[in-house]
Amino acid sequence: MSADQLRETRSDLQKLYDALCAAGLKLDLTRGKPAPEQLDLSNALLSMPGEDYRDAAGTDTRNYGGISGLPELREIFGELLAVDPKNLIAFGNSSLELMHDLTVFGLLGGTVDSTEPWNSGRVKFLCPAPGYDRHFAITESYGIEMIPVPMLPNGPDVDACAALTADDPSIKGMWAVPTYSNPTGVTFTEEVTRGLLEMPAADDFRIYWDNAYAVHTLVEAPPTPLPVLEMAAAAGNPNRVYVLGSTSKITFAGAGVSFFGSSTENLDWFTGHLSFKTIGPDKINQLRHARFFGDADGVRAHMAKHREILAPKFRLVLDILADRLADSKVAAWSEPEGGYFINLDVIDGTARRTIELAKQAGIALTGAGSAYPYKEDPFDRNIRLAPTFPSTDDLRQAMDGVATCVLLAASETLLASRES
Amino acid sequence: MSADQLRETRSDLQKLYDALCAAGLKLDLTRGKPAPEQLDLSNALLSMPGEDYRDAAGTDTRNYGGISGLPELREIFGELLAVDPKNLIAFGNSSLELMHDLTVFGLLGGTVDSTEPWNSGRVKFLCPAPGYDRHFAITESYGIEMIPVPMLPNGPDVDACAALTADDPSIKGMWAVPTYSNPTGVTFTEEVTRGLLEMPAADDFRIYWDNAYAVHTLVEAPPTPLPVLEMAAAAGNPNRVYVLGSTSKITFAGAGVSFFGSSTENLDWFTGHLSFKTIGPDKINQLRHARFFGDADGVRAHMAKHREILAPKFRLVLDILADRLADSKVAAWSEPEGGYFINLDVIDGTARRTIELAKQAGIALTGAGSAYPYKEDPFDRNIRLAPTFPSTDDLRQAMDGVATCVLLAASETLLASRES
Repeated sequence: MSADQLRETRSDLQKLYDALCAAGLKLDLTRGKPAPEQLDLSNALLSMPGEDYRDAAGTDTRNYGGISGLPELREIFGELLAVDPKNLIAFGNSSLELMHDLTVFGLLGGTVDSTEPWNSGRVKFLCPAPGYDRHFAITESYGIEMIPVPMLPNGPDVDACAALTADDPSIKGMWAVPTYSNPTGVTFTEEVTRGLLEMPAADDFRIYWDNAYAVHTLVEAPPTPLPVLEMAAAAGNPNRVYVLGSTSKITFAGAGVSFFGSSTENLDWFTGHLSFKTIGPDKINQLRHARFFGDADGVRAHMAKHREILAPKFRLVLDILADRLADSKVAAWSEPEGGYFINLDVIDGTARRTIELAKQAGIALTGAGSAYPYKEDPFDRNIRLAPTFPSTDDLRQAMDGVATCVLLAASETLLASRES
Repeated sequence: MSADQLRETRSDLQKLYDALCAAGLKLDLTRGKPAPEQLDLSNALLSMPGEDYRDAAGTDTRNYGGISGLPELREIFGELLAVDPKNLIAFGNSSLELMHDLTVFGLLGGTVDSTEPWNSGRVKFLCPAPGYDRHFAITESYGIEMIPVPMLPNGPDVDACAALTADDPSIKGMWAVPTYSNPTGVTFTEEVTRGLLEMPAADDFRIYWDNAYAVHTLVEAPPTPLPVLEMAAAAGNPNRVYVLGSTSKITFAGAGVSFFGSSTENLDWFTGHLSFKTIGPDKINQLRHARFFGDADGVRAHMAKHREILAPKFRLVLDILADRLADSKVAAWSEPEGGYFINLDVIDGTARRTIELAKQAGIALTGAGSAYPYKEDPFDRNIRLAPTFPSTDDLRQAMDGVATCVLLAASETLLASRES
């Protein structure tokens, strides 16, 4: 394209953008929130459990006690997370809270394999990037140094991870979303998983295996979950993995149940600490969930209904991206088979500008760099799109607007580089 | 009583005790748990909220968000805790969790008035004793030095507290249960409260004002709650008080709602930290509670029903204590107007023995010294009785057995001292 052609293109895009701004949109693609129709799928919970408040073992769920949660619910999610139910506890409404607490307990007292608390000396975490902003926020808030490691199509770059952990015992943790990763949609392969479990590292190195999207598929079925705890034990690192999960995007986002799975030694350590802060989780809510699902197949059937709602939204976003951006080659994007996000990479140096243009046009996108530690996207190219919450019409308008912003930002940058 | 008479008394008591053991009881007076009939009072919650899942402001309680909790529920409990609702947040199912987190945040980052984290250097807490074992467990678990201060009939010994805090800036916290204190039943007077708020102390000294039994009265009405946050501000120490409360012993012990009230500055600090660990509390459960109560009078009417169940149980325990122990003068006990406990003081040096005798007879009592920091009852005389959970028949049997154990332990000790 000649400079004149580029100028003309930019001028056309500017007109398109001005019209977009004039439309006075107010749309939000920032967070991975379920849509109201998804929440409706679980409305039966709103009147449960009813008068029968005893769990299968006869425990009165209304009273205190039971730090490990309801056995029948642990049974269901043990199967889905590939964790023996006796190595899985069911807790409160937030798996983020569990990850926070695991970190805090480490900082204040170390782990079962630590010789001292994590806060003595400099502590570091590996952060596959792009990754989940709320993970990074926990480590950043406590001054834990975050080391970005590349996220590859089959999972984190194991060689890069191993090169770091082998030499640096102050690396105590690693964030990971093994299935339909946030935001890339990548699912870790068995080979990558094995590499992470086997690589040399400090005895008290822990992988936060946040399997948040284990069953959140957009295709026929999710990948078979790997038995990471057994694999870790086989690799000689039985305490390396903290498995996390929740029903936040299965039932109600604010009122679900979280799960934590680990070795018996880690679990005893964790529940020991937990028992200083609570007498137990909300067992009534756990009973609601156990009855609502019945068994693991009940969860799978429920997720198929989510898929019916979500797959067309993801399709719509991908179609608009292809339609508006494929020819110009100014962007690349993921085509995830599950999870809550589409990862959009624009021309280097234009993500921040694109997000700002969108904001001015009334389309909220996740902040620039959010998927990187310290919000520092080294290439300024990553944009996380969250297609789940908006209605189809809003999503179409928003994505069409986003495409315009991507193109305008690209034309600005290309023109500037041409003219400089 | 002559030595012979004492020997005969002990021999009679031993026979009584042997018969008690032969009865094969299995009774439990350890924890302040609501009885099933109390839990039944809230069974309407088990089918709530039903299809209408929006709060008064129209928020969809099923989805993410709202770190401060439901406004209408904060309104109700703001009135009951004498805290402006805008200075009160509603959170999860455990106020213990809030107290734990307040401590952890202090240890890892200090408070809004700290110059450094609490864990740099030696940190101490004042512990009015006898007090609540789970409070002490939090501070002990994090290596915070606990300094016992006497609990007087009108509240903690303010002069003793002030003498300590005035000279020692490493005293960062104080545990307090201002209404129907656990286990003594003492309610702090306005004068004591004012003293605690005014006394000289470190800028980042905090009183954990755990108003767990604010409305849990055994008489016509609970004491009017003091507006401690306003009083603290008037005393020039606006950030000194953390007000805590919960519905654990109002609705369901495991599935209630907790509350945290403090100055705007403290609240902003706390919710800022909270937002790293959770996206928000279970709003559906908060909606259930708001609808169930309607308003503060709804809570008061509900507590009157608890009183109808609990007052006779407390009366029964007091009657048995009077009947069995008053004449011999080997014990003294509280006659609380509310709360969950009766405080029994036996002859110095016999609490542990009494509890052990009871255990052998199948009657579980809270462990010896539990109401003291480090479980160290300096006089070995304090026993906490929890009359709420057992049925009336069980309670009668258990208390009669306890009285026998108190008498036997006393006779043993008196005889031993006579013979030595």
